[in-house]
Amino acid sequence: MSNSVIERALAEGKAVEVSAGELGYLRVYDDLKGIPRGTVVFDGNVVVYGYPHIGRVTALARGLGEQFQAPFWVEEKIDGYNVRIVRVGERVLALTRGGFVCPFTTDRLPDLMSLAVFEDCPELVVCAEVAGPENPYNEASPPFVAEDVRLFVFDLMRVGSPGFIPYGEKQALLERYGLPAVECFGRYTADDLEAIGAILVRLSEEGREGVVFKEDSPRDHRAKYTTAAACIQDLRVGAQVLLDLPPEYFVNRLLQLAVFVEEHGLEEARLLGEAVGAALLEGLQDAIRLQRSEQKVLRRYRCRLRSAEAAERLIEHLARETGHQVQVLARDLRREQGYWVLEFDRVYPSTSGTLNSLLGGRLSFD
Amino acid sequence: MSNSVIERALAEGKAVEVSAGELGYLRVYDDLKGIPRGTVVFDGNVVVYGYPHIGRVTALARGLGEQFQAPFWVEEKIDGYNVRIVRVGERVLALTRGGFVCPFTTDRLPDLMSLAVFEDCPELVVCAEVAGPENPYNEASPPFVAEDVRLFVFDLMRVGSPGFIPYGEKQALLERYGLPAVECFGRYTADDLEAIGAILVRLSEEGREGVVFKEDSPRDHRAKYTTAAACIQDLRVGAQVLLDLPPEYFVNRLLQLAVFVEEHGLEEARLLGEAVGAALLEGLQDAIRLQRSEQKVLRRYRCRLRSAEAAERLIEHLARETGHQVQVLARDLRREQGYWVLEFDRVYPSTSGTLNSLLGGRLSFD
Repeated sequence: MSNSVIERALAEGKAVEVSAGELGYLRVYDDLKGIPRGTVVFDGNVVVYGYPHIGRVTALARGLGEQFQAPFWVEEKIDGYNVRIVRVGERVLALTRGGFVCPFTTDRLPDLMSLAVFEDCPELVVCAEVAGPENPYNEASPPFVAEDVRLFVFDLMRVGSPGFIPYGEKQALLERYGLPAVECFGRYTADDLEAIGAILVRLSEEGREGVVFKEDSPRDHRAKYTTAAACIQDLRVGAQVLLDLPPEYFVNRLLQLAVFVEEHGLEEARLLGEAVGAALLEGLQDAIRLQRSEQKVLRRYRCRLRSAEAAERLIEHLARETGHQVQVLARDLRREQGYWVLEFDRVYPSTSGTLNSLLGGRLSFD
Repeated sequence: MSNSVIERALAEGKAVEVSAGELGYLRVYDDLKGIPRGTVVFDGNVVVYGYPHIGRVTALARGLGEQFQAPFWVEEKIDGYNVRIVRVGERVLALTRGGFVCPFTTDRLPDLMSLAVFEDCPELVVCAEVAGPENPYNEASPPFVAEDVRLFVFDLMRVGSPGFIPYGEKQALLERYGLPAVECFGRYTADDLEAIGAILVRLSEEGREGVVFKEDSPRDHRAKYTTAAACIQDLRVGAQVLLDLPPEYFVNRLLQLAVFVEEHGLEEARLLGEAVGAALLEGLQDAIRLQRSEQKVLRRYRCRLRSAEAAERLIEHLARETGHQVQVLARDLRREQGYWVLEFDRVYPSTSGTLNSLLGGRLSFD
């Protein structure tokens, strides 16, 4: 199995050797049939499959019936970044969605979850979202994480196998090992539209991102769904870096939002409309203000690490992962309350360049 | 001159023969150096140059000083479609921006302006905007055109020559022949930022589109500027056909709007934000409602013509000009109060297709 993964990925030119310090691994950087992007192979035979794409359902009224043939669990979707946590030899590593070892999450793992589970189940792959205001990747964070970051487990896999451990077994393991789990809102069918709608309206009111529906059946079919609040939040942070995002970013969220409002018959539709406009305009005003004061559009990030070395590796990783488009600039690394606090900026060149030109009075041609 | 235009355009493969009824002409369908797209040649030697692109200035504070070396006229920019009106032999024709004879405008010309000017000045090219709720091209129309369409002249050219007739001479000709002109707000310099800002804030409050700045100098440099109200109007009508527009449509207007609000220090910024959100959400709700009721997103257009034959040629022209993306479907042609009233639909396939998929409950992958 593992050999065939490596062979296929290499043969199709979709995998690359990565070396991070003394650690080397093979990373699949593009989807192959049956092998998701982000699949990683350690030591030539330890295959950690990538976390699969989950499709989005936009209209629940027909979507739930269309998608699900059996009852499904409704679990919270957390606004953070996806990691797979796995033991490799004596070390426990956190892998990003794209298949890099994440220096930040790996460094902070002992703070985020008990690692005892790997003593009993060394072949386990813990799939989780890391979220909070002090994370190195996302601008947004959930309202219930007040500082730093927290980890929320939503799936378990096994090394060498692409599927998920069944729901009941997963819940039992999380409980037995005291692992922090995403909230589960219950088991429903497509007929429970009203109850599910009520959950989603409440989540939206609380500023939470949405849910993942997971069919309670061997095929374990899934779909994700995001709230109006999540769309508005995304529009706000997106507007700050408008021209460094694919334009579909805005179009998709506006569509999701409009269908959300229409389906849940929100009496607050007018209020939501106002929130959308305010989010977009305020995001843009933030960008204009930054361009005027700093001569560029940037965002300051801050995160806590246990070791200075991990901070250095994080900066290297971000510069490599972000590519040539967005610039990552380290600003400060200092000791604070037992942690190394890293501050860095992301600079957004397209938004900066366009604003520089427009605010400088140059002409544009539609 | 005329021969070289034809020869260059044909040699570079940027011109094509068009035949419309008994009328044949050569149409330049792409920009060439010194020959704008939309240039038309009749009878092998009557060259009507295309209307040139006018750049947009987004930030006035630096833009006016950056762009203008001399005082400039501030003229209203009308939200309609651009035509050049020219006499060819015994006929007076209206050409679209793209260089087609417009069957609608040509048919309606006697209602829209006095054609006497062409008796004295047969070589004149009258550049005008046609606007109003009953026009076959634009969804939006100016607040001061209550029904049907009106014509507003903003420039004069001469056959065979690519430049504009100087401002004073233009105004004198318009006055002498009683031609309907766009409103002129006066002659200003870049130092008159406050006065110009006040005009623009007022235009925005009145729901008007914006202005064109025209330098009062031999180089006749120009720049256009649109109000917050125009951006919001565009966002509303754009949201109705979201996926049939280039995504930059939204991004550009949001940027213009944000700079408008920032520059004019509008106290109503919050209200404008609300208007933006309402415009986007209402536009999208319109599309969703249409998709649910008609199984497609379409817009109904209605316009009045003097002859039934012109109505037929208009439908042919729209089908040809709109291309394969948007479908044009004739609905009705009937006599009403001395006119032929044509009704037709434009059907928007991308918006329809995506909404059909989303509302049908299918998954999408970001």
